[in-house]
Amino acid sequence: MRVLGVDPGLTRCGLGVVDVAANRTATMVAVGVVGSSHEQSLDGRLLVIAEAIDQWLDAFKPDVLAIERVFAQTNLSTVMGVAQVSGVVMVAAARRRIPVAMHTPSEVKAAVTGSGRADKASVTAMVVRILRLTEPPRPADAADALALAIAHAWRSGNSLASGPEGTTAAQQLWRDAETRAKTKKNKEKPGHAWR
Amino acid sequence: MRVLGVDPGLTRCGLGVVDVAANRTATMVAVGVVGSSHEQSLDGRLLVIAEAIDQWLDAFKPDVLAIERVFAQTNLSTVMGVAQVSGVVMVAAARRRIPVAMHTPSEVKAAVTGSGRADKASVTAMVVRILRLTEPPRPADAADALALAIAHAWRSGNSLASGPEGTTAAQQLWRDAETRAKTKKNKEKPGHAWR
Repeated sequence: MRVLGVDPGLTRCGLGVVDVAANRTATMVAVGVVGSSHEQSLDGRLLVIAEAIDQWLDAFKPDVLAIERVFAQTNLSTVMGVAQVSGVVMVAAARRRIPVAMHTPSEVKAAVTGSGRADKASVTAMVVRILRLTEPPRPADAADALALAIAHAWRSGNSLASGPEGTTAAQQLWRDAETRAKTKKNKEKPGHAWR
Repeated sequence: MRVLGVDPGLTRCGLGVVDVAANRTATMVAVGVVGSSHEQSLDGRLLVIAEAIDQWLDAFKPDVLAIERVFAQTNLSTVMGVAQVSGVVMVAAARRRIPVAMHTPSEVKAAVTGSGRADKASVTAMVVRILRLTEPPRPADAADALALAIAHAWRSGNSLASGPEGTTAAQQLWRDAETRAKTKKNKEKPGHAWR
Protein backbone atom coordinates (compact mmCIF):
# COMPACT_ATOMS: atom_id res chain seq x y z
CA MET A 1 0.00 0.00 0.00
CA ARG A 2 1.35 3.43 -0.95
CA VAL A 3 0.29 6.27 1.32
CA LEU A 4 0.78 10.00 0.84
CA GLY A 5 0.84 11.61 4.27
CA VAL A 6 0.05 15.32 4.42
CA ASP A 7 0.73 17.49 7.44
CA PRO A 8 -1.29 20.56 6.42
CA GLY A 9 -0.14 24.13 6.91
CA LEU A 10 0.05 27.37 4.95
CA THR A 11 3.63 28.20 5.83
CA ARG A 12 4.90 24.65 5.83
CA CYS A 13 2.88 21.75 4.45
CA GLY A 14 4.72 18.47 5.00
CA LEU A 15 4.47 15.71 2.40
CA GLY A 16 5.68 12.13 2.76
CA VAL A 17 5.16 9.06 0.58
CA VAL A 18 5.60 5.64 2.17
CA ASP A 19 5.19 2.13 0.76
CA VAL A 20 4.01 -0.40 3.35
CA ALA A 21 4.19 -4.11 2.61
CA ALA A 22 1.76 -6.75 3.87
CA ASN A 23 4.26 -7.63 6.63
CA ARG A 24 4.13 -3.97 7.77
CA THR A 25 7.62 -3.16 6.49
CA ALA A 26 7.61 0.53 5.58
CA THR A 27 9.85 2.20 3.00
CA MET A 28 10.19 5.91 2.32
CA VAL A 29 9.53 6.88 -1.30
CA ALA A 30 9.61 10.67 -1.08
CA VAL A 31 9.56 13.47 1.44
CA GLY A 32 9.29 17.24 1.20
CA VAL A 33 7.78 20.46 2.45
CA VAL A 34 5.88 23.06 0.45
CA GLY A 35 4.74 26.43 1.65
CA SER A 36 4.89 30.15 1.22
CA SER A 37 5.54 33.34 3.14
CA HIS A 38 3.02 35.59 4.82
CA GLU A 39 3.76 38.22 2.18
CA GLN A 40 1.80 36.39 -0.49
CA SER A 41 -1.98 36.66 -0.82
CA LEU A 42 -4.00 33.90 0.85
CA ASP A 43 -5.36 32.57 -2.44
CA GLY A 44 -1.86 32.59 -3.91
CA ARG A 45 -0.54 30.66 -0.91
CA LEU A 46 -3.26 28.07 -1.24
CA LEU A 47 -2.54 27.75 -4.96
CA VAL A 48 1.13 26.97 -4.29
CA ILE A 49 0.05 24.08 -2.11
CA ALA A 50 -2.71 22.91 -4.48
CA GLU A 51 -0.25 22.71 -7.36
CA ALA A 52 2.30 20.81 -5.26
CA ILE A 53 -0.34 18.29 -4.13
CA ASP A 54 -1.45 17.81 -7.72
CA GLN A 55 2.14 17.10 -8.73
CA TRP A 56 2.74 14.65 -5.88
CA LEU A 57 -0.50 12.78 -6.52
CA ASP A 58 0.28 12.47 -10.22
CA ALA A 59 3.94 11.57 -9.71
CA PHE A 60 3.58 9.02 -6.92
CA LYS A 61 0.02 7.75 -7.48
CA PRO A 62 -0.71 6.84 -3.85
CA ASP A 63 -3.47 4.36 -2.98
CA VAL A 64 -4.66 6.65 -0.22
CA LEU A 65 -4.03 10.13 1.12
CA ALA A 66 -3.74 10.44 4.90
CA ILE A 67 -4.20 13.86 6.47
CA GLU A 68 -4.32 15.16 9.99
CA ARG A 69 -7.77 15.62 11.47
CA VAL A 70 -7.92 19.27 12.51
CA PHE A 71 -9.79 20.43 15.57
CA ALA A 72 -11.12 23.88 16.12
CA GLN A 73 -10.14 24.06 19.77
CA THR A 74 -6.41 23.85 19.05
CA ASN A 75 -4.24 26.85 18.28
CA LEU A 76 -6.76 29.29 16.81
CA SER A 77 -4.03 31.47 15.31
CA THR A 78 -3.23 28.84 12.71
CA VAL A 79 -6.24 26.54 12.61
CA MET A 80 -8.08 28.49 9.91
CA GLY A 81 -5.17 28.24 7.52
CA VAL A 82 -4.73 24.57 8.35
CA ALA A 83 -8.40 23.93 7.62
CA GLN A 84 -8.22 25.83 4.32
CA VAL A 85 -5.18 23.81 3.26
CA SER A 86 -6.93 20.59 4.34
CA GLY A 87 -9.89 21.39 2.11
CA VAL A 88 -7.62 22.02 -0.86
CA VAL A 89 -5.68 18.79 -0.25
CA MET A 90 -8.81 16.65 0.17
CA VAL A 91 -10.34 17.94 -3.06
CA ALA A 92 -7.14 17.18 -4.98
CA ALA A 93 -7.41 13.55 -3.87
CA ALA A 94 -11.16 13.38 -4.43
CA ARG A 95 -10.77 14.63 -8.00
CA ARG A 96 -8.58 11.57 -8.66
CA ARG A 97 -10.90 9.19 -6.73
CA ILE A 98 -8.07 8.60 -4.24
CA PRO A 99 -9.58 7.85 -0.80
CA VAL A 100 -8.85 10.30 2.00
CA ALA A 101 -8.18 9.10 5.55
CA MET A 102 -8.03 11.33 8.60
CA HIS A 103 -6.11 10.63 11.79
CA THR A 104 -5.77 12.63 14.95
CA PRO A 105 -2.31 13.65 16.16
CA SER A 106 -2.63 11.30 19.15
CA GLU A 107 -3.57 8.40 16.90
CA VAL A 108 -0.47 9.03 14.79
CA LYS A 109 1.79 9.30 17.81
CA ALA A 110 0.31 6.16 19.35
CA ALA A 111 0.72 4.22 16.11
CA VAL A 112 4.40 5.01 15.65
CA THR A 113 5.65 5.34 19.24
CA GLY A 114 3.10 3.45 21.34
CA SER A 115 2.14 6.64 23.20
CA GLY A 116 -0.43 9.19 22.11
CA ARG A 117 1.47 11.81 24.09
CA ALA A 118 4.89 11.24 22.56
CA ASP A 119 6.96 14.34 21.90
CA LYS A 120 8.24 15.46 18.52
CA ALA A 121 11.72 14.00 19.03
CA SER A 122 10.28 10.56 19.84
CA VAL A 123 8.09 10.59 16.75
CA THR A 124 11.03 11.56 14.55
CA ALA A 125 13.26 8.91 16.13
CA MET A 126 10.67 6.21 15.49
CA VAL A 127 10.10 7.40 11.91
CA VAL A 128 13.85 7.06 11.30
CA ARG A 129 13.86 3.55 12.78
CA ILE A 130 10.67 2.35 11.06
CA LEU A 131 11.81 3.58 7.65
CA ARG A 132 15.40 2.36 8.24
CA LEU A 133 16.83 5.80 7.46
CA THR A 134 20.43 6.67 8.21
CA GLU A 135 19.50 10.12 9.49
CA PRO A 136 16.36 12.14 10.32
CA PRO A 137 14.33 13.17 7.27
CA ARG A 138 14.97 16.67 5.98
CA PRO A 139 13.33 19.10 6.21
CA ALA A 140 12.56 18.14 9.81
CA ASP A 141 8.92 19.23 9.44
CA ALA A 142 8.37 16.40 7.00
CA ALA A 143 8.78 13.73 9.67
CA ASP A 144 5.18 14.27 10.74
CA ALA A 145 3.91 13.64 7.23
CA LEU A 146 5.86 10.37 7.13
CA ALA A 147 4.47 9.44 10.55
CA LEU A 148 0.94 10.06 9.27
CA ALA A 149 1.53 7.81 6.28
CA ILE A 150 2.96 5.01 8.45
CA ALA A 151 0.19 5.36 11.00
CA HIS A 152 -2.46 5.10 8.33
CA ALA A 153 -1.02 1.93 6.86
CA TRP A 154 -0.63 0.34 10.29
CA ARG A 155 -4.06 1.17 11.62
CA SER A 156 -7.16 -0.72 10.68
CA GLY A 157 -9.24 0.57 7.81
CA ASN A 158 -11.87 2.47 9.76
CA SER A 159 -10.35 5.88 9.30
CA LEU A 160 -11.70 7.03 5.96
CA ALA A 161 -13.21 10.49 6.02
CA SER A 162 -16.63 8.94 6.27
CA GLY A 163 -18.24 10.53 9.28
CA PRO A 164 -19.27 9.26 12.70
CA GLU A 165 -19.71 5.61 11.72
CA GLY A 166 -15.96 5.19 11.27
CA THR A 167 -15.07 6.90 14.51
CA THR A 168 -12.50 5.19 16.68
CA ALA A 169 -12.43 5.42 20.45
CA ALA A 170 -9.58 7.94 20.35
CA GLN A 171 -11.39 10.02 17.77
CA GLN A 172 -14.50 9.95 19.93
CA LEU A 173 -12.47 11.29 22.87
CA TRP A 174 -11.23 14.13 20.69
CA ARG A 175 -14.71 14.76 19.37
CA ASP A 176 -16.08 14.93 22.89
CA ALA A 177 -13.35 17.41 23.79
CA GLU A 178 -14.24 19.42 20.72
CA THR A 179 -17.89 19.43 21.71
CA ARG A 180 -16.99 20.72 25.16
CA ALA A 181 -14.86 23.44 23.58
CA LYS A 182 -17.69 24.79 21.45
CA THR A 183 -18.59 28.32 22.34
CA LYS A 184 -22.12 28.21 21.05
CA LYS A 185 -24.50 25.94 19.24
CA ASN A 186 -26.37 26.75 16.09
CA LYS A 187 -27.89 23.53 14.89
CA GLU A 188 -30.42 24.99 12.51
CA LYS A 189 -28.01 26.94 10.43
CA PRO A 190 -24.99 24.80 9.58
CA GLY A 191 -22.07 26.11 7.64
CA HIS A 192 -22.79 29.69 8.34
CA ALA A 193 -21.19 31.99 10.86
CA TRP A 194 -23.02 35.26 10.51
CA ARG A 195 -26.73 34.75 10.31
CA MET B 1 -17.61 44.73 -12.93
CA ARG B 2 -18.88 41.17 -12.58
CA VAL B 3 -18.58 39.67 -9.11
CA LEU B 4 -19.16 36.09 -7.99
CA GLY B 5 -20.14 36.16 -4.33
CA VAL B 6 -19.63 32.95 -2.37
CA ASP B 7 -21.17 32.29 1.03
CA PRO B 8 -19.15 29.21 2.01
CA GLY B 9 -20.58 26.16 3.73
CA LEU B 10 -20.47 22.39 3.40
CA THR B 11 -24.21 21.83 3.64
CA ARG B 12 -25.23 24.93 1.74
CA CYS B 13 -22.76 27.04 -0.22
CA GLY B 14 -24.48 30.12 -1.66
CA LEU B 15 -23.43 31.45 -5.05
CA GLY B 16 -24.47 34.73 -6.62
CA VAL B 17 -23.26 36.57 -9.72
CA VAL B 18 -23.89 40.30 -9.96
CA ASP B 19 -22.93 42.85 -12.60
CA VAL B 20 -22.29 46.32 -11.21
CA ALA B 21 -22.08 49.32 -13.51
CA ALA B 22 -19.87 52.36 -12.97
CA ASN B 23 -22.93 54.24 -11.60
CA ARG B 24 -23.29 51.45 -8.98
CA THR B 25 -26.41 49.96 -10.59
CA ALA B 26 -26.37 46.25 -9.75
CA THR B 27 -28.01 43.50 -11.81
CA MET B 28 -28.39 39.85 -10.86
CA VAL B 29 -26.90 37.43 -13.39
CA ALA B 30 -27.24 34.11 -11.55
CA VAL B 31 -28.00 32.72 -8.12
CA GLY B 32 -27.89 29.27 -6.58
CA VAL B 33 -26.91 27.02 -3.73
CA VAL B 34 -24.73 23.92 -3.83
CA GLY B 35 -24.15 21.50 -1.01
CA SER B 36 -24.39 17.97 0.20
CA SER B 37 -25.66 15.93 3.12
CA HIS B 38 -23.76 14.79 6.18
CA GLU B 39 -23.98 11.23 4.89
CA GLN B 40 -21.34 11.83 2.25
CA SER B 41 -17.62 11.67 3.01
CA LEU B 42 -15.93 14.99 3.73
CA ASP B 43 -13.70 14.81 0.67
CA GLY B 44 -16.72 13.95 -1.46
CA ARG B 45 -18.65 16.90 -0.06
CA LEU B 46 -15.77 19.24 -0.81
CA LEU B 47 -15.52 17.85 -4.34
CA VAL B 48 -19.19 18.63 -5.02
CA ILE B 49 -18.52 22.24 -4.15
CA ALA B 50 -15.21 22.40 -6.03
CA GLU B 51 -16.84 21.18 -9.21
CA ALA B 52 -19.72 23.65 -8.87
CA ILE B 53 -17.32 26.55 -8.35
CA ASP B 54 -15.31 25.46 -11.38
CA GLN B 55 -18.48 25.45 -13.46
CA TRP B 56 -19.64 28.86 -12.23
CA LEU B 57 -16.23 30.44 -12.80
CA ASP B 58 -16.05 29.05 -16.32
CA ALA B 59 -19.67 29.86 -17.19
CA PHE B 60 -19.87 33.40 -15.82
CA LYS B 61 -16.21 34.50 -15.97
CA PRO B 62 -16.37 36.95 -13.05
CA ASP B 63 -13.78 39.71 -12.71
CA VAL B 64 -13.42 38.95 -9.03
CA LEU B 65 -14.58 36.38 -6.50
CA ALA B 66 -15.81 37.76 -3.18
CA ILE B 67 -15.96 35.41 -0.21
CA GLU B 68 -16.80 35.79 3.45
CA ARG B 69 -13.85 36.22 5.77
CA VAL B 70 -14.15 33.43 8.33
CA PHE B 71 -13.14 33.86 11.93
CA ALA B 72 -12.16 31.08 14.26
CA GLN B 73 -14.00 32.45 17.26
CA THR B 74 -17.44 32.09 15.68
CA ASN B 75 -19.53 28.92 15.80
CA LEU B 76 -16.85 26.26 16.21
CA SER B 77 -19.21 23.47 15.20
CA THR B 78 -19.25 24.65 11.60
CA VAL B 79 -16.20 26.87 11.22
CA MET B 80 -13.87 24.06 10.18
CA GLY B 81 -16.10 23.05 7.29
CA VAL B 82 -16.53 26.68 6.28
CA ALA B 83 -12.75 27.14 6.27
CA GLN B 84 -12.21 23.99 4.23
CA VAL B 85 -14.78 25.15 1.66
CA SER B 86 -13.17 28.61 1.62
CA GLY B 87 -9.81 27.09 0.78
CA VAL B 88 -11.30 25.09 -2.08
CA VAL B 89 -13.12 28.13 -3.45
CA MET B 90 -10.10 30.42 -3.25
CA VAL B 91 -7.89 27.93 -5.10
CA ALA B 92 -10.46 27.58 -7.87
CA ALA B 93 -10.26 31.32 -8.45
CA ALA B 94 -6.48 31.45 -8.07
CA ARG B 95 -6.04 28.73 -10.72
CA ARG B 96 -7.82 31.06 -13.17
CA ARG B 97 -5.94 34.18 -11.98
CA ILE B 98 -9.25 35.64 -10.80
CA PRO B 99 -8.61 37.91 -7.79
CA VAL B 100 -10.14 36.91 -4.47
CA ALA B 101 -11.61 39.49 -2.11
CA MET B 102 -12.63 38.83 1.47
CA HIS B 103 -15.24 40.73 3.45
CA THR B 104 -16.48 40.29 6.97
CA PRO B 105 -20.18 39.72 7.60
CA SER B 106 -20.49 43.13 9.24
CA GLU B 107 -18.85 44.81 6.25
CA VAL B 108 -21.37 43.15 3.95
CA LYS B 109 -24.34 44.08 6.11
CA ALA B 110 -23.09 47.67 6.44
CA ALA B 111 -22.57 47.96 2.67
CA VAL B 112 -26.06 46.84 1.70
CA THR B 113 -28.18 48.05 4.66
CA GLY B 114 -26.11 50.79 6.27
CA SER B 115 -25.85 48.81 9.49
CA GLY B 116 -23.23 46.22 10.34
CA ARG B 117 -25.70 44.60 12.72
CA ALA B 118 -28.61 44.24 10.29
CA ASP B 119 -30.63 41.04 10.57
CA LYS B 120 -31.07 38.49 7.82
CA ALA B 121 -34.48 39.83 6.76
CA SER B 122 -33.11 43.36 6.32
CA VAL B 123 -30.22 42.10 4.21
CA THR B 124 -32.56 40.09 1.99
CA ALA B 125 -34.96 43.03 1.63
CA MET B 126 -32.14 45.33 0.55
CA VAL B 127 -30.77 42.74 -1.89
CA VAL B 128 -34.22 42.56 -3.50
CA ARG B 129 -34.39 46.33 -3.75
CA ILE B 130 -30.82 46.85 -4.97
CA LEU B 131 -31.14 44.18 -7.67
CA ARG B 132 -34.69 45.33 -8.60
CA LEU B 133 -36.08 41.81 -8.10
CA THR B 134 -39.80 41.15 -7.96
CA GLU B 135 -39.42 38.66 -5.09
CA PRO B 136 -36.71 37.41 -2.72
CA PRO B 137 -34.04 35.27 -4.40
CA ARG B 138 -34.53 31.51 -4.13
CA PRO B 139 -33.15 29.55 -2.45
CA ALA B 140 -33.24 32.03 0.41
CA ASP B 141 -29.69 31.11 1.47
CA ALA B 142 -28.38 32.61 -1.74
CA ALA B 143 -29.31 36.16 -0.71
CA ASP B 144 -26.11 36.33 1.36
CA ALA B 145 -23.98 35.44 -1.64
CA LEU B 146 -25.65 38.21 -3.65
CA ALA B 147 -25.11 40.63 -0.77
CA LEU B 148 -21.43 39.71 -0.73
CA ALA B 149 -21.11 40.39 -4.44
CA ILE B 150 -22.88 43.76 -4.16
CA ALA B 151 -20.85 44.73 -1.11
CA HIS B 152 -17.61 43.96 -2.86
CA ALA B 153 -18.45 46.08 -5.88
CA TRP B 154 -19.59 48.98 -3.70
CA ARG B 155 -16.64 49.01 -1.34
CA SER B 156 -13.28 50.49 -2.22
CA GLY B 157 -10.66 48.18 -3.60
CA ASN B 158 -8.70 47.51 -0.44
CA SER B 159 -10.24 44.13 0.30
CA LEU B 160 -8.18 41.72 -1.78
CA ALA B 161 -6.93 38.74 0.19
CA SER B 162 -3.58 40.42 0.53
CA GLY B 163 -2.78 40.39 4.20
CA PRO B 164 -2.51 43.08 6.86
CA GLU B 165 -1.68 45.93 4.47
CA GLY B 166 -5.21 45.92 3.03
CA THR B 167 -6.91 45.72 6.38
CA THR B 168 -9.84 48.06 6.89
CA ALA B 169 -10.78 49.47 10.26
CA ALA B 170 -13.67 47.03 10.61
CA GLN B 171 -11.43 44.13 9.71
CA GLN B 172 -8.91 45.31 12.27
CA LEU B 173 -11.62 45.29 14.94
CA TRP B 174 -12.48 41.71 14.03
CA ARG B 175 -8.83 40.76 13.97
CA ASP B 176 -8.33 42.23 17.43
CA ALA B 177 -11.33 40.24 18.66
CA GLU B 178 -9.85 37.15 17.10
CA THR B 179 -6.54 37.78 18.84
CA ARG B 180 -8.31 38.06 22.18
CA ALA B 181 -10.14 34.79 21.49
CA LYS B 182 -6.95 32.82 20.92
CA THR B 183 -6.48 30.07 23.44
CA LYS B 184 -2.74 29.79 23.08
CA LYS B 185 0.15 31.11 21.09
CA ASN B 186 2.64 29.08 19.16
CA LYS B 187 4.63 31.52 17.10
CA GLU B 188 7.56 29.29 16.27
CA LYS B 189 5.55 26.54 14.72
CA PRO B 190 2.90 27.95 12.43
CA GLY B 191 0.36 25.83 10.67
CA HIS B 192 0.68 22.94 13.04
CA ALA B 193 -1.58 21.95 15.88
CA TRP B 194 0.07 18.98 17.45
CA ARG B 195 3.81 19.52 17.87
